Amino acid sequence: MTFDYRAFYRGRKVLITGGLGFIGSNLARRLVALDADVLLVDSLIDDYGGNLFNIDGIADRLHVNVADIRQQTTMNYLVRDRAVIFNLAGQVSHIDSMRDPYTDLEINCRSQLTVLEACRNHNPGVKVVFAGTRQVYGRPDSLPVDESQLVRPTDVNGINKAAGEYYHLVYNNVFGIRACSLRLTNVYGPRQLIKHNRQGFIGWFIRLAIENRPIQIYGDGSQLRDFVYVDDAADAFLRAGADDRCNGEVFNVGGNEAISHRDLATLLVKTAGSGRVEYVEWPADKKAIDIGSFYADSTKFKRTTGWAPGVSLGDGLRDTVAFYRAHFSQYVGPAAERA
Amino acid sequence: MTFDYRAFYRGRKVLITGGLGFIGSNLARRLVALDADVLLVDSLIDDYGGNLFNIDGIADRLHVNVADIRQQTTMNYLVRDRAVIFNLAGQVSHIDSMRDPYTDLEINCRSQLTVLEACRNHNPGVKVVFAGTRQVYGRPDSLPVDESQLVRPTDVNGINKAAGEYYHLVYNNVFGIRACSLRLTNVYGPRQLIKHNRQGFIGWFIRLAIENRPIQIYGDGSQLRDFVYVDDAADAFLRAGADDRCNGEVFNVGGNEAISHRDLATLLVKTAGSGRVEYVEWPADKKAIDIGSFYADSTKFKRTTGWAPGVSLGDGLRDTVAFYRAHFSQYVGPAAERA
Repeated sequence: MTFDYRAFYRGRKVLITGGLGFIGSNLARRLVALDADVLLVDSLIDDYGGNLFNIDGIADRLHVNVADIRQQTTMNYLVRDRAVIFNLAGQVSHIDSMRDPYTDLEINCRSQLTVLEACRNHNPGVKVVFAGTRQVYGRPDSLPVDESQLVRPTDVNGINKAAGEYYHLVYNNVFGIRACSLRLTNVYGPRQLIKHNRQGFIGWFIRLAIENRPIQIYGDGSQLRDFVYVDDAADAFLRAGADDRCNGEVFNVGGNEAISHRDLATLLVKTAGSGRVEYVEWPADKKAIDIGSFYADSTKFKRTTGWAPGVSLGDGLRDTVAFYRAHFSQYVGPAAERA
Repeated sequence: MTFDYRAFYRGRKVLITGGLGFIGSNLARRLVALDADVLLVDSLIDDYGGNLFNIDGIADRLHVNVADIRQQTTMNYLVRDRAVIFNLAGQVSHIDSMRDPYTDLEINCRSQLTVLEACRNHNPGVKVVFAGTRQVYGRPDSLPVDESQLVRPTDVNGINKAAGEYYHLVYNNVFGIRACSLRLTNVYGPRQLIKHNRQGFIGWFIRLAIENRPIQIYGDGSQLRDFVYVDDAADAFLRAGADDRCNGEVFNVGGNEAISHRDLATLLVKTAGSGRVEYVEWPADKKAIDIGSFYADSTKFKRTTGWAPGVSLGDGLRDTVAFYRAHFSQYVGPAAERA
């Protein structure tokens, strides 16, 4: 446990797919600070989360390559010489996946094969850390949820993310491409997409609070969730990327405590000093894929890597609100549309 | 339990995808005997298992439509008016899936979305029974394996079959397309592909015995498997298709007893009166995706539907050997290549 995972990255060639997105860009900031050689790949597809402003201030200390990870020949080239790949590219909207399951399949499932085949044929010594999701569990049998619970996704996005994760494990076990998956719960913080509300509720809630608009809670808002501040999520990726004890494994990466939607919204309104909470009936399409309460048991990852969340929900929300207040036009409105 | 699932099919419009294949054609025989209105869809892709001889004797009592289930517009048309779809089309080779993961993805994963989207948009009242596989479990934690064990596939084929199965459950839960999945273990019997050895070992063993060739057992052959005779598998599909208690569920469908590879090969040689058993080292590519011993606990399906395997392994092997001896040229050699 005395292994210094930060020093591991000094001068190390890393690649982040989805590197201009929310978690990818925060991870890139950490890696730049650790003097890694950072290459970001991002498709900058409209509405998916990639935003050049996310690397504002570090753009001259890394390389950006606009590309779609579904492009095999491009990925064959880009993975060469990289020591670690943080594989974060994906379509993250549950709702979109139910409207257009084929696009979700292409981006979350087929594209993972593209990355892994590129590694198998052009850089088999690489280490890959995949951004998994708690969505693969669906509605939990019991709480908190650890990795022994069944994978039982409730929407197409969850299925395709599960398949993408399984590919990584099979390539680890069969082809020796070292890989693991972090099943993240609800990540929040600066640089998340808040242009629309189809990528999870927390970024959207933060936008509504800042705009002093009502925050709609479905039902009584008693369902529980856990939240991870994006810096803590980035730290989890750094640890997993440097630690071969993670290979071939899946890990829950979640927050330290569970909080209800209702209490979260109340805390957010109090923190922001604006917005208000409003209770409404469940919309039918959202109710159909809701999973009730969910919070993760991250003991396995903590034990393996020494990781622990360092930022409390109160502090994280405060910093997040301050970030978006300072840079609102980069994430909402005409400038954000051009991003 | 007094519900007569056989009478349910009289005059009923059913569709079997992969209907010229091994299980599909045996199921078609049962349905024709029950006076169902049977439509078979099959792509007749070389080496996949579809064979027109499989419907010899019943061809004038059903309809055959050659088509690829990946074709959305074709499927949109073919699913109309059908009351039950037995969704059996697929690529079944583990080995092929590791050589060409994209084709396996297209056929086992994307194609299932095509079938389900056709149902959602053109026949939402239909019932769908999916042919799942024990492969989704990978290497078991304990034996026998029931449905509470984790899905942890060891090859690309298993991952894509898992995704295809999950789609059915999500379409059941979210869109109300009644669907369930039967996770079949090792099915054997007449009409299985025996042209090559990439679709599982039992059909291949039977061919070798008939040809009086050595049957190669990897290692000491002590790993256990359970086997289901194809008539029993067809009966499982009939029960699941007629029974709404199955909707939204996955079920193991396996044999009554486990037997080692070694004992199976010995029994087969004795039954056929030809062939011989030969022990060899594990080939590396097969060892990498081997799962050790596996046999299923099918209690959940038995309790739900009253199903039970009716054909012993000894009787099943005897009838299978007799079938292939009578029709060998339809399955091996020039005539089979044209099939």
